[in-house]
Amino acid sequence: MRVDGRSNNELRNMTMTTNFTKHPEGSVLISVGDTKVICNASVEKKVPPFMRGEGKGWITAEYAMLPRATEQRNIRESSKGKVAGRTMEIQRLIGRTLRAIIDLEKIGERTIWVDCDVIQADGGTRTAAITGAFVATTLACAKLFKEKLIEEMPITNYLAATSVGISSEGNAILDLCYEEDSKADVDLNIVMTNEGKFVELQGTGEEATFSPDQLNEMLQLGTKGIKEIFEVQREALGETADLIKS
Amino acid sequence: MRVDGRSNNELRNMTMTTNFTKHPEGSVLISVGDTKVICNASVEKKVPPFMRGEGKGWITAEYAMLPRATEQRNIRESSKGKVAGRTMEIQRLIGRTLRAIIDLEKIGERTIWVDCDVIQADGGTRTAAITGAFVATTLACAKLFKEKLIEEMPITNYLAATSVGISSEGNAILDLCYEEDSKADVDLNIVMTNEGKFVELQGTGEEATFSPDQLNEMLQLGTKGIKEIFEVQREALGETADLIKS
Amino acid sequence: MRVDGRSNNELRNMTMTTNFTKHPEGSVLISVGDTKVICNASVEKKVPPFMRGEGKGWITAEYAMLPRATEQRNIRESSKGKVAGRTMEIQRLIGRTLRAIIDLEKIGERTIWVDCDVIQADGGTRTAAITGAFVATTLACAKLFKEKLIEEMPITNYLAATSVGISSEGNAILDLCYEEDSKADVDLNIVMTNEGKFVELQGTGEEATFSPDQLNEMLQLGTKGIKEIFEVQREALGETADLIKS
Amino acid sequence: MRVDGRSNNELRNMTMTTNFTKHPEGSVLISVGDTKVICNASVEKKVPPFMRGEGKGWITAEYAMLPRATEQRNIRESSKGKVAGRTMEIQRLIGRTLRAIIDLEKIGERTIWVDCDVIQADGGTRTAAITGAFVATTLACAKLFKEKLIEEMPITNYLAATSVGISSEGNAILDLCYEEDSKADVDLNIVMTNEGKFVELQGTGEEATFSPDQLNEMLQLGTKGIKEIFEVQREALGETADLIKS
Amino acid sequence: MRVDGRSNNELRNMTMTTNFTKHPEGSVLISVGDTKVICNASVEKKVPPFMRGEGKGWITAEYAMLPRATEQRNIRESSKGKVAGRTMEIQRLIGRTLRAIIDLEKIGERTIWVDCDVIQADGGTRTAAITGAFVATTLACAKLFKEKLIEEMPITNYLAATSVGISSEGNAILDLCYEEDSKADVDLNIVMTNEGKFVELQGTGEEATFSPDQLNEMLQLGTKGIKEIFEVQREALGETADLIKS
Amino acid sequence: MRVDGRSNNELRNMTMTTNFTKHPEGSVLISVGDTKVICNASVEKKVPPFMRGEGKGWITAEYAMLPRATEQRNIRESSKGKVAGRTMEIQRLIGRTLRAIIDLEKIGERTIWVDCDVIQADGGTRTAAITGAFVATTLACAKLFKEKLIEEMPITNYLAATSVGISSEGNAILDLCYEEDSKADVDLNIVMTNEGKFVELQGTGEEATFSPDQLNEMLQLGTKGIKEIFEVQREALGETADLIKS
Repeated sequence: MRVDGRSNNELRNMTMTTNFTKHPEGSVLISVGDTKVICNASVEKKVPPFMRGEGKGWITAEYAMLPRATEQRNIRESSKGKVAGRTMEIQRLIGRTLRAIIDLEKIGERTIWVDCDVIQADGGTRTAAITGAFVATTLACAKLFKEKLIEEMPITNYLAATSVGISSEGNAILDLCYEEDSKADVDLNIVMTNEGKFVELQGTGEEATFSPDQLNEMLQLGTKGIKEIFEVQREALGETADLIKS
Repeated sequence: MRVDGRSNNELRNMTMTTNFTKHPEGSVLISVGDTKVICNASVEKKVPPFMRGEGKGWITAEYAMLPRATEQRNIRESSKGKVAGRTMEIQRLIGRTLRAIIDLEKIGERTIWVDCDVIQADGGTRTAAITGAFVATTLACAKLFKEKLIEEMPITNYLAATSVGISSEGNAILDLCYEEDSKADVDLNIVMTNEGKFVELQGTGEEATFSPDQLNEMLQLGTKGIKEIFEVQREALGETADLIKS
Repeated sequence: MRVDGRSNNELRNMTMTTNFTKHPEGSVLISVGDTKVICNASVEKKVPPFMRGEGKGWITAEYAMLPRATEQRNIRESSKGKVAGRTMEIQRLIGRTLRAIIDLEKIGERTIWVDCDVIQADGGTRTAAITGAFVATTLACAKLFKEKLIEEMPITNYLAATSVGISSEGNAILDLCYEEDSKADVDLNIVMTNEGKFVELQGTGEEATFSPDQLNEMLQLGTKGIKEIFEVQREALGETADLIKS
Repeated sequence: MRVDGRSNNELRNMTMTTNFTKHPEGSVLISVGDTKVICNASVEKKVPPFMRGEGKGWITAEYAMLPRATEQRNIRESSKGKVAGRTMEIQRLIGRTLRAIIDLEKIGERTIWVDCDVIQADGGTRTAAITGAFVATTLACAKLFKEKLIEEMPITNYLAATSVGISSEGNAILDLCYEEDSKADVDLNIVMTNEGKFVELQGTGEEATFSPDQLNEMLQLGTKGIKEIFEVQREALGETADLIKS
Repeated sequence: MRVDGRSNNELRNMTMTTNFTKHPEGSVLISVGDTKVICNASVEKKVPPFMRGEGKGWITAEYAMLPRATEQRNIRESSKGKVAGRTMEIQRLIGRTLRAIIDLEKIGERTIWVDCDVIQADGGTRTAAITGAFVATTLACAKLFKEKLIEEMPITNYLAATSVGISSEGNAILDLCYEEDSKADVDLNIVMTNEGKFVELQGTGEEATFSPDQLNEMLQLGTKGIKEIFEVQREALGETADLIKS
Repeated sequence: MRVDGRSNNELRNMTMTTNFTKHPEGSVLISVGDTKVICNASVEKKVPPFMRGEGKGWITAEYAMLPRATEQRNIRESSKGKVAGRTMEIQRLIGRTLRAIIDLEKIGERTIWVDCDVIQADGGTRTAAITGAFVATTLACAKLFKEKLIEEMPITNYLAATSVGISSEGNAILDLCYEEDSKADVDLNIVMTNEGKFVELQGTGEEATFSPDQLNEMLQLGTKGIKEIFEVQREALGETADLIKS
């Protein structure tokens, strides 16, 4: 029995509030259990210098936590004057995975900035951020499309993520909350498309290792969970879901 | 007639959601019209080095905006590696005004960190932050008091803030939204206690000036508005309001 | 009786040495009692990127203290690698108030940099800086005008500042020195034009408050003092004073 | 046929020069084809503040490139004043994987700093760094052991890494050089112990995806390659290899 | 004939105003022609961490220019967030040369901070700073001695500096002003004690070279000039000069 | 007898490995005793903004040490976020001396970046860096010349450097190793051309002084040593040596 009563292959309750704030082209508040992330997609009418004149766009992500999103307050990165390694790793991951499902030729010379701000953290913030960022990005692209600023929807696939791990009792478990995550021997983040392909796999056994058999078990569990997440995304997108080709 | 239909002496709709996130000792989401600020008060069991051993506490504030809280996306201060002058000015103001209504002797060697994070901005973010910060701080102190970690409530007065200005038509107006603020000739932020005393006055006529008569008119309007805000704070605090001496 | 023998409504001795250093277009050493500030106005033949092509100019200020301007040596901000919040607040204030009395259309696409460097501090450095900055800026503009680089003098009004406060004995006092300032309950900085209008009001009662009556008393005292300061400025400017329209 | 004539499952030539520089406790120059990395392990007689008094040690890694290790010169991170996200990601990876095969209880309150400095880059610098870092760390531990500063060798397993990918022709290929890496659709870094367990898996298909079948094929290829690397490590370690328990 | 009418072996007019500002233990304004530097020596009752408990003191220097000390305004180093290489070089030089003539055992566990702030620059700012820093340091030590905080004067020698160069006409010239310095082929800074010994020699022929004969000629000229400077220092010190042993 | 058995006027063993890494236009590993420095010259097809459009080139140098180049590990400057004063001083010195022997008109609008990275330090790293930087720069220029990208070789002279000092026994000694350097009273770095002219002289007696006679003795010793170094450079350059005019 897991700490919150779930079975090993069960996701936490997931909800998405679209249009959570009024300014961004796409805005979502995603809740995965007690983890809450505001995902805002902003469209800017230019691309970074290294891409100018190529007629294609760019998408990039930033990730941060409110100081008291966690049990102990963290010092702001702006006060420290530098972005932590963990933050950089996560925001590079979010941007990289979004680039796998968006056709940048189709958005013209625009940059989509996806800001993922964790307002409450309880494990799995990076996978929640990816899952919410997909919805925010899709909403922003749909806005461009409906306003006829772009000719075709650039989203080629659904994208979602979850974590799987091996608990200290040796069981493969899905969608770890913070308490589970801090005790687990192995933690594997999986990012997939709705065609069942991997976009990113990040498995780490800090101070521990995992066998090929455990890897397979975790991959199957993650694949099952992500399929369920695609349904939550589809529902949150409502009519906009019909604009995605796949 | 004002841009949103209000009369000159009318506040925007103000709501406060207490316990907005689960980790902080005091947490409030304050909405003032379309301005939304998360105010979290965190208690830390130590004081800054310059105060150690004096047996009294400290309270300090930080202020930030999500990148897309505004109509145009702003670059994160953590990415720029430094905190802007405007941000510093506001967070110094919030901390200073809170110190006017809290008896630091009564909280022992603890620091209260008040984080004011604007998730949506439509004018008046600094006054909304002060107003919400008061409620978050009171909730955090009440928690310490109920858990018998401190012997007396340290809050000596209510504290609230609003802005008043002279519109481009020459009228004194209360609680300016962003559109009004950007057109106004003069902007005066007023922070008061419920005893009718001023804690802070910041009046500026960038590229303009104001007469002593206009100052008086604005002070009266602001005083009226702040009295109404104290009522909203009292209601948001519920039973905790009874713990405040004044 | 005040610490230095002055009466409550008496300014400290104020002197200004114009052309204090040889390179700047306008240069003044202002002494207000033991507070000494070098105010240098430099003219640069371009404006910041966000203003290019508009045909108008910009004025901005920077403020700093020599490390041993104060009783205890302070670490240089260049060594710390960042500018303190207090410094930013003051330099934003100086720039903002100067912009209220200069017609930026009339200086063309030029930037005036006003550097206020405190070489000795004894209270009231920010108001001394504003008062001296006005003279340095006027000298720099007069130089442009005499050299026929601009067609009209852009200075529309005199600008001066002082501080008033409520002493620990409860009296309203004018032009606080450091010892008074550190004991005062309330500190109000007033910036005015010679038309008797306010440009900026910054009143703060850190860990204290002030009543509307005290505010009025302080405003009257400050208004009286600033009128006297305009005379000192006029004398320091000499013939250049005649070039100011008002 | 691959760009350098290798077959798909063939490693590049790998050599290790131990004691490459004289000061570090463990020093190795590892060459993997044209990729050359100096791996230096330094022992410091204290641990970071958060670990003091626990009687156990710490191991951490840093990674950098000489400015002209690459085809185009890169600006130094010290000149830019900040460490790039990519660098942080790699040095966190190296440290994390080393912690999986070292028993930190056995090194006492010491920190082992592993510096991986790339002097020439031709793809696979992070996996070369891990492979060389293992040897440098083992040499440093052996020195402590031989000098009787520690009672037991803390190394619990061999640790090595390589990359596998899917070439643009769709073949799974082992140990990608820079030219292959920049064209490949998928890149998977594998870190394993000599017990055949995974320590870390990082698979990414930037702007592409990979199927479960492709994942399996890559995992098998990587496992084969890493087994061969263990032999090169064993040889480089010479007699020191006998001190490793496994 | 030189640009300002001096003969080749003639110093510029040099004056020193002691007690220039009131807070520092030693304060001097040195003028060397149009070069003006405020040299303030501050005594702090502790030493840097690496020297604690050794019972001896430390002396260090900082150097800066006001933004408009020069013909063109320079951006403040505090705004840029870092100290320029040139600044670091000069402040390291000042501190190093002062350490040659002060017996740090005799000042106890104290740090003397010598701040050299250039308010007007016309060539030779670093040598003026050293010459003035010597006087400020001596005044600060004399204050400690007179107040019986130290038992003996720690100053072992006079210290002064000047520059010599080879003009574009090929003549050796003494004490270059800015115009001469910018045209000279070679620039040699000499720091000496009153025993006729060198403390520091820094000769550079950027984009040029100098022969051994030219070096000798410059050394003789510099030695002559520095002897004259010692007289100016002695006079500025007044009675304090008698406290120096040598 | 010296610590390593050399006579007072004897250089350490010096070797240079050209083409040490494959990417740079010029690459040398220089060993001077146990001091080892990688000197890489990179050619970039543009000049810094302040030189654009003048048709001439620029050469600049950077200097760094691997963290464990020294007996104790040093923190990386990239981690500290700033470049140390000592580093800046050395890299400014290297660049300045190279500019004395290269005709920048002849390289067109190109920048030569010379990176000197110390991988093992045993005294004299800055003079080794200059000596190696000359060879790397010459190789890079020869490459441009052979590829007919420039019409003439821009190198006008050989350039080499060494250190001389006064040992604690009072003897003038040549080419100090680290142990000698840390005990010496005086340290003089000499940079010369093969015409016997000085490019730079930096003599310092931190906490000590030196007489004119000692200076002369050191200059003669250094001149002798540098003549021998020119031979090592000539040999390392091989046929490329013939391309240098002098």
